[in-house]
Amino acid sequence: WASLIACARRAVRVLRYNGAVLANSGEGARLIVRKTLKFLHTVGAIGYAGAAAAFLVLHAQLPDPEDLERFATLRMAMGAVAERIAPNLKPGAILTDVGSTKASVIAQMAPFVPENVHFIPGHPIAGTEKSGPDAGFAGLFKGRWCILTPAEDADPAALDKLTQFWQALGSRVDTMAADHHDKVLAIVSHLPHIIAYNIVGTADDLETVTESEVIQYSASGFRDFTRLAASDPTMWRDVCLHNRDAILEMLSRFSEDLAYLQRAIRWG
Amino acid sequence: WASLIACARRAVRVLRYNGAVLANSGEGARLIVRKTLKFLHTVGAIGYAGAAAAFLVLHAQLPDPEDLERFATLRMAMGAVAERIAPNLKPGAILTDVGSTKASVIAQMAPFVPENVHFIPGHPIAGTEKSGPDAGFAGLFKGRWCILTPAEDADPAALDKLTQFWQALGSRVDTMAADHHDKVLAIVSHLPHIIAYNIVGTADDLETVTESEVIQYSASGFRDFTRLAASDPTMWRDVCLHNRDAILEMLSRFSEDLAYLQRAIRWG
Repeated sequence: WASLIACARRAVRVLRYNGAVLANSGEGARLIVRKTLKFLHTVGAIGYAGAAAAFLVLHAQLPDPEDLERFATLRMAMGAVAERIAPNLKPGAILTDVGSTKASVIAQMAPFVPENVHFIPGHPIAGTEKSGPDAGFAGLFKGRWCILTPAEDADPAALDKLTQFWQALGSRVDTMAADHHDKVLAIVSHLPHIIAYNIVGTADDLETVTESEVIQYSASGFRDFTRLAASDPTMWRDVCLHNRDAILEMLSRFSEDLAYLQRAIRWG
Repeated sequence: WASLIACARRAVRVLRYNGAVLANSGEGARLIVRKTLKFLHTVGAIGYAGAAAAFLVLHAQLPDPEDLERFATLRMAMGAVAERIAPNLKPGAILTDVGSTKASVIAQMAPFVPENVHFIPGHPIAGTEKSGPDAGFAGLFKGRWCILTPAEDADPAALDKLTQFWQALGSRVDTMAADHHDKVLAIVSHLPHIIAYNIVGTADDLETVTESEVIQYSASGFRDFTRLAASDPTMWRDVCLHNRDAILEMLSRFSEDLAYLQRAIRWG
């Protein structure tokens, strides 16, 4: 955590340019965008599905460096951070985030967002099984999807600007409702990770098959799960808690289907 | 199936040399070994975990071409084939197989193996998600494990010869009891495949998330399962039926662990 704060301090001067990010569309702006995102990587803001989340404030008055340290925060605390920065947001600012669940982020942040600020949640689906400050790299977003989840009454111009921002980084942008985002991610990402953790745990607990045997023969299928199971468990605990309803629904369906398959295997 | 038989016919002359395979350890023998294995690939004997199984008869009097056609048989019928070829096996012959489950193969074949023939079951763990006649390629076994499951009273010299056979193909050879093999494979291979099939099925059935959304965002985890889920379902049904007990035990443990995890997610 101390190293995250140190990174945040070093990156303050990058964020100082934020107000100008979208002022023009030339190479200069693109450079600033990259620097900004580099900051976000640096503070661990955008690892695999966002180990720690940070705020991305465009066209906004920036807080002072001490405030900034709190930007590199766990999703848990996003409501508290929103409350803290709200008074510093310029009218017309676009406020977004990079968390991997959306309904819970909205529930936490929205109450504190001033009426004259455009809050458009986002989720860049990019990264590797690594998370944290060292997981960022150039081109992380190139060709990857970024899902924006604007409210129904969101300002089209603000949405357009944020779309351009992600496109400038090479991302493809999709837009959907926050609840739908959470269901899609529950099946394509959260459930696969939970299952991968689970099978690795089941294998660990076996009395009859040793760990070295599992490793030795993992090429026959098991290995396909280990990349997912290698990602940060603390982050995933966090994701599970913040997308609880959608994950529980997918888990129930998966378990039901598996029980049906198990019965078929038992009875031939 | 007809094409398998045609392949078997063409490969008869390769099998005719079988008796000489282990007569010497020079390049000539290695070539014959490769040709023999090429035959086994050709008839679909050694795809991923063996979609169709065939017998590998070393130092044996070979059956005539008409009999050979029946070699390219489903694991289901291995007892029947063993019964058919038993009278043609030379005293001292080594009989092995390449099926991906071992206890059930032994139960089917052992009753028909003459006392003066060395029956040493084997499982080369090699291949890709593809199976069938076209899935074989040169170097398929190089650096991969082959598990032999000799009975406790197996002839050491015969085991040594079969070990050399697989080593000549570049395989690393491990030896264990058939029951243990089936448990190891249940956790490292069978359970991962069943789970991968299952999650793809669960995703298919969702009313709220479309197939194209699953594909579009599959990089966030789901994609890691699709290689496994792409393998031949008929083959896997077969494997499940032949390794039922070990698979049901692993499935029960997995489901129990998952229920525990699900409860933790529900109650935070």
